[in-house]
Amino acid sequence: MLLIKIGGGTNINMDFIAQDLVDVIQTNQVIVVHGANASRDEIAQRMGVPTKTITSPSGVSSVYTDQEAIDIFLMAYAGLVNKRIVETFHKHGINAVGLSGIDGKLWQAKRKKHLYAQIEGKTKLVSDSYTGKVETINSSLISLLSESGYLPVICPPALSHESEIVNTDNDMAIAAMASVLPIDTIVSLFEAPGLLKDHTDESSIIRTVQSDILGTSMEYAQGRMKKKVLGAQKALEAGVKTIHWGDGRVERPISRLFAGEGTVIKQ
Amino acid sequence: MLLIKIGGGTNINMDFIAQDLVDVIQTNQVIVVHGANASRDEIAQRMGVPTKTITSPSGVSSVYTDQEAIDIFLMAYAGLVNKRIVETFHKHGINAVGLSGIDGKLWQAKRKKHLYAQIEGKTKLVSDSYTGKVETINSSLISLLSESGYLPVICPPALSHESEIVNTDNDMAIAAMASVLPIDTIVSLFEAPGLLKDHTDESSIIRTVQSDILGTSMEYAQGRMKKKVLGAQKALEAGVKTIHWGDGRVERPISRLFAGEGTVIKQ
Repeated sequence: MLLIKIGGGTNINMDFIAQDLVDVIQTNQVIVVHGANASRDEIAQRMGVPTKTITSPSGVSSVYTDQEAIDIFLMAYAGLVNKRIVETFHKHGINAVGLSGIDGKLWQAKRKKHLYAQIEGKTKLVSDSYTGKVETINSSLISLLSESGYLPVICPPALSHESEIVNTDNDMAIAAMASVLPIDTIVSLFEAPGLLKDHTDESSIIRTVQSDILGTSMEYAQGRMKKKVLGAQKALEAGVKTIHWGDGRVERPISRLFAGEGTVIKQ
Repeated sequence: MLLIKIGGGTNINMDFIAQDLVDVIQTNQVIVVHGANASRDEIAQRMGVPTKTITSPSGVSSVYTDQEAIDIFLMAYAGLVNKRIVETFHKHGINAVGLSGIDGKLWQAKRKKHLYAQIEGKTKLVSDSYTGKVETINSSLISLLSESGYLPVICPPALSHESEIVNTDNDMAIAAMASVLPIDTIVSLFEAPGLLKDHTDESSIIRTVQSDILGTSMEYAQGRMKKKVLGAQKALEAGVKTIHWGDGRVERPISRLFAGEGTVIKQ
């Protein structure tokens, strides 16, 4: 089983991905998981409630997710972006079904209800945060669709064990999926040709990362890439054999990676 | 099979509906179809692109649906409202899966590409309209989920035969579903106790409408109710035995209708 993760950047070319997928699905059982962070931020801005971030006592910043942020999250991920991807896939003859992690409890998460955050120089308890970590996957819903000829197109958010909608990290959710589904390969498409030594220089690509992914990659990973590295490590631990990281802006983005472009991470 | 249609008004009480559904699904195979017009209008307003209407040469006004309107439609229907309903159902232990008409070509529509509209006193051709009439239903996707214990929660938009996302009329889509699925009963919940003789007087409810639905109801139906009446007639023609119209704002809204409240429309 091949899991394709499509990043949520504005320059990802969904037509190129769909064109390539038409061939890829001939020989692979495929699941797609996608992001939508650029759309989310744009919608939040236009709605007059820009995405807020909080900083943990150790200095790590993350998106602050209250109920209003969840509403916008749903509009961007499960609404606009998921359905536009499904439309594009159908235009190319791919019988896609869009689902969020909420549907059929596809992604069940443990809600992290209380967070400590640095607010105006003081550490305060934030208790209206709706974020969580995916722990349980409804693999039978994915198999049901997949075995009936549908291509599942999945996005966050997830559902907590108390049935609340919670924001969650896509890469960790993918690792959780890899632990219960026979996913041997992950292709992750984003707005760079792969993992870069110097994130300002696209020619500084690292071709291969082996075994000691954390050691090799964390040295170079910037910002959001750090989460990808952690997710990749978890996915390898869950039994995934090969992870390809590559460019979602170019023609035949998946086939290129299979032909050796991008960054390859192997067990 | 019982189809429950939930209107898109602000005062519909989704908790009351979910509480009641817990019992109703014990003895009925249920599909839910919902609207989201109030959310759509609110989001459009906040995004700075209020819902536009156009007027046909014969004076009938309808929502003008260009690509930007489709984006907002997706955010409201497939995103915010669909997933909040799915969340509420899961809170009550109902294993809901939310789908739009796009997913797996659940609702395939004939796009009405060109419309004539009155614009500044002149009749002009509008050719960037994305609306259509549902003609084909993917009943096997509904059966697949339904027979595996999931409750399908379905919303517009639909997918055109050319795989474009198109706005569509919910009541007509329901009639199309009734023609291919064994739906014998439709419950339609909205912000009134039923069909009213005088739409300003909730006590003027019409209890029963038989056979000549168009003759009896069109006389009293106002605005959006006219579409409900036309949809109900099509659904009866498609083989539905009983249609209940009633209040989506009250406790046990479905059971009440089965016990005789609201308006009953019979073949």
